[in-house]
Amino acid sequence: MAALRLFPIEGVPEVEPGDVLAEMLVAAAMEQGTPFEPQDCVVVTQKIVSKAEGRVVPLDAGDPEARRAMIEAESARVLRRRDELVISETRHGFVCANAGIDLSNVDDGYAALLPIDPDRSARVVRDGIRALAGADVAVIVSDTFGRAWRVGLTDVAIGVAGLAAVVDLRGQFDTRGRELQVTEIALADEIAGAAELVKGKASNVPAVVVRGLDPAWFREASARELVRPPAEDLFR
Amino acid sequence: MAALRLFPIEGVPEVEPGDVLAEMLVAAAMEQGTPFEPQDCVVVTQKIVSKAEGRVVPLDAGDPEARRAMIEAESARVLRRRDELVISETRHGFVCANAGIDLSNVDDGYAALLPIDPDRSARVVRDGIRALAGADVAVIVSDTFGRAWRVGLTDVAIGVAGLAAVVDLRGQFDTRGRELQVTEIALADEIAGAAELVKGKASNVPAVVVRGLDPAWFREASARELVRPPAEDLFR
Repeated sequence: MAALRLFPIEGVPEVEPGDVLAEMLVAAAMEQGTPFEPQDCVVVTQKIVSKAEGRVVPLDAGDPEARRAMIEAESARVLRRRDELVISETRHGFVCANAGIDLSNVDDGYAALLPIDPDRSARVVRDGIRALAGADVAVIVSDTFGRAWRVGLTDVAIGVAGLAAVVDLRGQFDTRGRELQVTEIALADEIAGAAELVKGKASNVPAVVVRGLDPAWFREASARELVRPPAEDLFR
Repeated sequence: MAALRLFPIEGVPEVEPGDVLAEMLVAAAMEQGTPFEPQDCVVVTQKIVSKAEGRVVPLDAGDPEARRAMIEAESARVLRRRDELVISETRHGFVCANAGIDLSNVDDGYAALLPIDPDRSARVVRDGIRALAGADVAVIVSDTFGRAWRVGLTDVAIGVAGLAAVVDLRGQFDTRGRELQVTEIALADEIAGAAELVKGKASNVPAVVVRGLDPAWFREASARELVRPPAEDLFR
């Protein structure tokens, strides 16, 4: 029976610019008695990646002009505005609120921007964990996005290393022996959302281990697989 | 350490109209040595719910006119069309492709429609499991939907019983002691997506148990919590 297990990595110290996340995660995983294993998927929140990469910048939250200018600087294109809410496309191609700029869990007077290259961020953590712990893990950098049509936020993958972002089941067969059509599963998004269930927004858990994923899913990959090309998107 | 465990319920026989799903699930869970426990969340695929409820209807897949008529009959409103693809709002308020009508894993010449009241379907399974196994579980009815902006499908909740569909973290505080703003987590969707990871589209796993969820999340609920009112939706 293929069971999946998810558990948080607790006790990670406050992350500062220049910190090596892989070192901190390997130490914390050892400390709590759950060293990384091959084919673990480690889901790391965007917030600590942005902090380690120095993507935390001064912003006066009380100054709407400064906030608006920062959102536009981080956006490739604004899709919709309503009151203070801006839905835009980031330079990575992600569609989200306020270009992913986030004021929670950072010091007053500061804002966290998305990593410049979240796939690279994921690769750096992955390579670090492999070097330090000898475990060939996958890494997902996750962030919390809203959706069209449905209430509530879900965690999704903005960076991926070592695991398929999308799994294409075309060519496989259903239980009737008919070939499945157009069944691309957004694997990395489902994993990021699953990790959110053991993280909790208000608690201080910056990483979650997902253990027991299908070995066939581990391969080189990019979160760009998850970006629907604007020309194919009926809702931009 | 708050760990989450997910495992499939295997060995469920082919579901026929009138079958009592709770009986089949309780028997299969016992058979594989994993009886239900209180505060398990049982994620059941829409497909077996529709089959049990007789929502499988004849459709000649080769007749585009018949297919179109069926989609329109199941839709409250069509949002977009491109070639054979129709994105519409179902009478439940869900926005998805082809009004949720599905040809996979049903007999040739038939199509599975969404349950008429998926919350009620979830409640029926929940009440049945409680009566038969004595375990007060939550139940989610899941289906596989596409999204705007992002490639790939994810499983989401279309029916919920006994577990918050959306968790509102407003009023809680971040690690800096600042009150979290507008942080509604689409809990039931994240759970449905997580369950998909142990299910796999091509295999014959119609239900997944999620064990270890936060006890605070168990309450009366409805998947309607997940439907964004059209007036508040910037993308319809």
